[in-house]
Amino acid sequence: MKILLIGATGTLGTALHKALSARGHDVLTVGRTGGDLRYDITDPAQTSEMYERAGGVDAVVSAAGDVPFKPLAELTSEDHLAAFRGKVLSQIDVVRQGLTRVADGGSFTLISGVLAREPIVTGAAASMANGAVEAFVRAAAIEIAPRRINAVSPTVFTESLTEYGEYFPGMASVDLARVAQAYIRSVEGGQTGQIYAL
Amino acid sequence: MKILLIGATGTLGTALHKALSARGHDVLTVGRTGGDLRYDITDPAQTSEMYERAGGVDAVVSAAGDVPFKPLAELTSEDHLAAFRGKVLSQIDVVRQGLTRVADGGSFTLISGVLAREPIVTGAAASMANGAVEAFVRAAAIEIAPRRINAVSPTVFTESLTEYGEYFPGMASVDLARVAQAYIRSVEGGQTGQIYAL
Repeated sequence: MKILLIGATGTLGTALHKALSARGHDVLTVGRTGGDLRYDITDPAQTSEMYERAGGVDAVVSAAGDVPFKPLAELTSEDHLAAFRGKVLSQIDVVRQGLTRVADGGSFTLISGVLAREPIVTGAAASMANGAVEAFVRAAAIEIAPRRINAVSPTVFTESLTEYGEYFPGMASVDLARVAQAYIRSVEGGQTGQIYAL
Repeated sequence: MKILLIGATGTLGTALHKALSARGHDVLTVGRTGGDLRYDITDPAQTSEMYERAGGVDAVVSAAGDVPFKPLAELTSEDHLAAFRGKVLSQIDVVRQGLTRVADGGSFTLISGVLAREPIVTGAAASMANGAVEAFVRAAAIEIAPRRINAVSPTVFTESLTEYGEYFPGMASVDLARVAQAYIRSVEGGQTGQIYAL
């Protein structure tokens, strides 16, 4: 399949690039600062240009989402809005604008995260954003057939424990290889409206 | 208890006003167009003024949230942003600004809705907003003790079936009295971080 991979240069995106290429897919990478195409999906105009450049695709895979982490009392309205724009509206725009670009039977796979269901201190804006993404995916699925949409909702990556482990005390980590497996299931399988919680 | 009831003039707000008053509470009503205080919580400056005018309260109860309903392909970026501002950011601001206004042991009870878990056609922005509210509530709960926070997440009201029933085919309705009961549980009980799904 021809797959558009957004957020391709991050920790997850790099792992997805390898895993999807190893499955024989033709992966077109998108990043703000690196990749085959350079676009920032928080700007709808850039998302539109991205699709123009990419041409038709069979699947869109997103590993792109930025949210601020702060104690709840320090999170401002602007922080919550930044979380919404950085992870929710950006991915919704990818779906919205992609409806006419993705092939029949093709799929969107968005990134969410464990904080949708299991909170951590300083993670309220991230929880909010992930909850929004997952509910959107369940809702979009019933309106976009024959196209499909799922989300992958991982806990902290095992490979990121050194950097972020302290924020997830006593919580299990997940290997990037397992996360990539869930994306493959979404792309190559037939399910829609699913949240793959890992 | 002294309870600040936001969204007091709507179908739900009116029922909550009656039910909370019948429990002996001192209910201060807030609405955009009616109520003891006239404020629009989608404007953080008005939320601030609302709290100034209200003085200290024991509980804040919200029945206020506006989201656009349209087929997914017609929902614009602006529509999704309007849903976020109209139901998510507005209620988050009520909590954020209320942290220093609500008494120890006091509570916030927000409004979500069934679309967080069960989608309907034309409801993608509403689902997104409700999912955001519910995940925020779970996350905020672990950072705002001794204050508490819960959400009530009802399906279509039995009393609103004539107007909205066609959008919820085959889905059970819930009586407003049952919804008010959940708010009472949140306000008078001791739980926090709960989503009362009705």
